[in-house]
Amino acid sequence: MKSDRIARVAAYMKEQSLTQIVVTSTAAVYYLTGLWIEPHERMLALYLTEDGTATLFGNEIFGVESSKELPVIAHKDSDNPVADLAAVLRPGTLGVDKFWPSKFLIGLMQARPDITPVLGSAPIDTARRFKDAEEQDALRRASRINDQVVQAAIAAVCEGAVEIELAASINKTFMDHGADNSDGVQLVCFGANAADPHHAPDHSVIQPGDCVVFDIFTPIGRYWCDMTRTVFYKTVSEEQRQVYETVKAANLAGISAVAPGVPLREIDRAARSVIEQAGYGPYFTHRLGHGIGLECHEPPDVSAASDAVAKPGMVFSIEPGIYLPGKVGVRIEDLVMVTENGCEVLNRAPKDLMIVG
Amino acid sequence: MKSDRIARVAAYMKEQSLTQIVVTSTAAVYYLTGLWIEPHERMLALYLTEDGTATLFGNEIFGVESSKELPVIAHKDSDNPVADLAAVLRPGTLGVDKFWPSKFLIGLMQARPDITPVLGSAPIDTARRFKDAEEQDALRRASRINDQVVQAAIAAVCEGAVEIELAASINKTFMDHGADNSDGVQLVCFGANAADPHHAPDHSVIQPGDCVVFDIFTPIGRYWCDMTRTVFYKTVSEEQRQVYETVKAANLAGISAVAPGVPLREIDRAARSVIEQAGYGPYFTHRLGHGIGLECHEPPDVSAASDAVAKPGMVFSIEPGIYLPGKVGVRIEDLVMVTENGCEVLNRAPKDLMIVG
Repeated sequence: MKSDRIARVAAYMKEQSLTQIVVTSTAAVYYLTGLWIEPHERMLALYLTEDGTATLFGNEIFGVESSKELPVIAHKDSDNPVADLAAVLRPGTLGVDKFWPSKFLIGLMQARPDITPVLGSAPIDTARRFKDAEEQDALRRASRINDQVVQAAIAAVCEGAVEIELAASINKTFMDHGADNSDGVQLVCFGANAADPHHAPDHSVIQPGDCVVFDIFTPIGRYWCDMTRTVFYKTVSEEQRQVYETVKAANLAGISAVAPGVPLREIDRAARSVIEQAGYGPYFTHRLGHGIGLECHEPPDVSAASDAVAKPGMVFSIEPGIYLPGKVGVRIEDLVMVTENGCEVLNRAPKDLMIVG
Repeated sequence: MKSDRIARVAAYMKEQSLTQIVVTSTAAVYYLTGLWIEPHERMLALYLTEDGTATLFGNEIFGVESSKELPVIAHKDSDNPVADLAAVLRPGTLGVDKFWPSKFLIGLMQARPDITPVLGSAPIDTARRFKDAEEQDALRRASRINDQVVQAAIAAVCEGAVEIELAASINKTFMDHGADNSDGVQLVCFGANAADPHHAPDHSVIQPGDCVVFDIFTPIGRYWCDMTRTVFYKTVSEEQRQVYETVKAANLAGISAVAPGVPLREIDRAARSVIEQAGYGPYFTHRLGHGIGLECHEPPDVSAASDAVAKPGMVFSIEPGIYLPGKVGVRIEDLVMVTENGCEVLNRAPKDLMIVG
């Protein structure tokens, strides 16, 4: 059990007038208990009350033993797991994990019509925004490995390179470096493919003059790294160079804007202004960044719509991009950790324009 | 749009007195529309009424264009997407996808207190149990590739082999064969590790006398393959041989029991009896199998608790296992497709006891 984290969450519950919440996502349960449980179709629910008392409801297949700190109420596949939980809830408002599959919530509402479900993720999301020392170390370590993996990937760019094969080799390199798993489609995009920020790697073969975007990420010790680098194969055109330098300047402007007390929307603005002033505003089509930790994408949002303010311990990405349809895409992404005075950039892989091959 | 599938789902809706449902999981939306959309934290909802009318609600980032067949109501990241959906729903009962994240359902209930959510996945799950000709072809093709991949994996077993490295190479081979992605932790378990049916591959190095379990799966053309083979490294003990032959006999007994009209729990029983009669009953600790299609695990369940009955077009796994803690684990898994007369076994990789290395 992570009792200091539970105490922080309980305090946030009081602030939000929540007396009971059900925590169900793998990352949130891990954050509070240190138990990593992937329930798949089965029910997992950590029931937490405002006094910091926790009870875990889970399938016996999860193999969690009851302890004094954390009583476990286990069910079998043939049981109705919602009934166990329904039996202990207090009447009234119940905070529910935003990701809980509706099948459980609907079952719970049918069993307990005296309960009103409301969104209950905020206390944990708020606590998770501020990484404690253990989490900061894990995030630094993961990004340090990512620096090595991206450089190995860039070194592997050669004649005949295929997006999907480079992507698979990145997963392999992550595994060699101790990643938790080889999950995830690493983004490797050549040329015009890179102009679609959501292009999934396919059988495209590299051509001279292509930009090559590597957006690579994986969990290592449960905490995610996530970085993007863009290089050019054999040659670079004047337009590509201009796009690249603009994105790099936007990345640096975003990083420079990070300090405690700065609204995240102003960090988005700082980077976006650089791109707008260069005339590429309409081609930077997504938010500047996202929080990261036990999940690759987690709050806070770094966008024009964000209400969040930078505070020490927050970790998020700064990832401006320019996408010229049919031509080129460039994105440069680093993770930053807000410190007392500014920020620590977790990635150290070089960002100067690089021509390879 | 897959109008024949929508018509089948609409008929099941009528049977279940559902006049409107919200379909939100990637696989279910694909099944009905042919659009593969992974919404991640964003909202995706296909609203379907009993007359077979469909409307798609999704983020503009999904890039889906409105058409006559399928009107699309797109939202931006800064919008409240639930409001669009709330505006069109009829009062009364609404069937909701079992996997819909609670954050959307709670928002919908707050916007529309005149709506009563109930579980609404059954019409689609029922339709999806019976694979149509297009789906059958896709499943056959995926398993044909799996036959090749498992044989390559077995051929790669050698001195110094490491679980996690073999697992990564299997993902790579799947990609080489055109798999949709390299997602997923391929299960490769040596020796006593294999006695835990949920062991994730780690840095264990192969030892003479180890059993080697390969449980490998991936989507290919959106449809999953999933097969398990167990081989032995260098030598096999008498006990290992007995366990292996028992599991193989159980696998064959399960397959022999498959025919239209047979309750799936009897298929589980047919395989389980073989293991029980050999004295290993307590060591076969899981259900016999699971449905498969657009998801690796989907209904129906092949277990003692299953109410389902085999009908032509159903595809599920037959995967008995024996797990002797600290010693050995053996599992042999094939996919079967129920035919008019019995079943078609989708996997052809050999099952005779094999000693490698």
